[in-house]
Amino acid sequence: MTTEQDIRPKERRVEIAPARDAQLRFIGTIRTPFPDRAACPRQGRQDGPDCRLVLDPVWHPALQGLEDYETLEVLYWLDRSRRDLVVQAPRHDDRVFGTFALRSPVRPNPIGTALVRLVRIEAGEVVVRGLDCIDGTPLLDIKPDRSAFTPKAPPKSTEGG
Amino acid sequence: MTTEQDIRPKERRVEIAPARDAQLRFIGTIRTPFPDRAACPRQGRQDGPDCRLVLDPVWHPALQGLEDYETLEVLYWLDRSRRDLVVQAPRHDDRVFGTFALRSPVRPNPIGTALVRLVRIEAGEVVVRGLDCIDGTPLLDIKPDRSAFTPKAPPKSTEGG
Repeated sequence: MTTEQDIRPKERRVEIAPARDAQLRFIGTIRTPFPDRAACPRQGRQDGPDCRLVLDPVWHPALQGLEDYETLEVLYWLDRSRRDLVVQAPRHDDRVFGTFALRSPVRPNPIGTALVRLVRIEAGEVVVRGLDCIDGTPLLDIKPDRSAFTPKAPPKSTEGG
Repeated sequence: MTTEQDIRPKERRVEIAPARDAQLRFIGTIRTPFPDRAACPRQGRQDGPDCRLVLDPVWHPALQGLEDYETLEVLYWLDRSRRDLVVQAPRHDDRVFGTFALRSPVRPNPIGTALVRLVRIEAGEVVVRGLDCIDGTPLLDIKPDRSAFTPKAPPKSTEGG
């Protein structure tokens, strides 16, 4: 297990002060069949196993209308990730890459994004396929996929139509 | 301008305590030609104007290798958005929708995501097209687009690949 202190040869970390830039609020928890990082697939597949987005009750009414979308964007917080590597080496690879040239969970703001297929919504839980995160991952947001979503407000006249 | 107190008829807000769930770190600033929300297009277009992701110097080395990708995913913090609406009415629309059924900036964790086209990288600034956010928006993350990105590590044997 990598600790906050361990880095591999050629990796580089930076000193970063504790931030007070903005505060997230976890809106629920993601339940997946993957108990740890070793069990997670490298990338989620929309024919993968059912996973559940379990929302805190205060946010249940915010699901109204979500059933109209087949594909959702899900944002979550990779709460076990270190945040101080500027260059890093993927496992099983000696080469190093800049953190922003990878989709590694190790990044200054470890926010995961996934496009998932909606299976069903039941009692404040959204069942989806396509996630690759660890069971218990904190949930940040759910939105319709941008390619399926038509803005409800009409286009602005400055956009030419 | 909507204040924290104003809501439209049929909208619903919730009482949410100040969160201490997780802290973001802004990694830079986004420069766009859009000075306020009225000037922003409803959705970014990859043939839109050049915008600049201006990174804090500590993160410049993290761009190494990013030039290999045509399409990037950009995450940013919509710092002017209220966060307490569970249902809301899009402008120019009397119907209400659950917050998670909209791509409105008003959401419990106002994180914007965009797929953008990389134009060029120069001295810690990434020039892209396809953003729709206000000039000065805090930058959270840059990653290769998932559809273009091939994991550097080999597939796991459990994936059958």
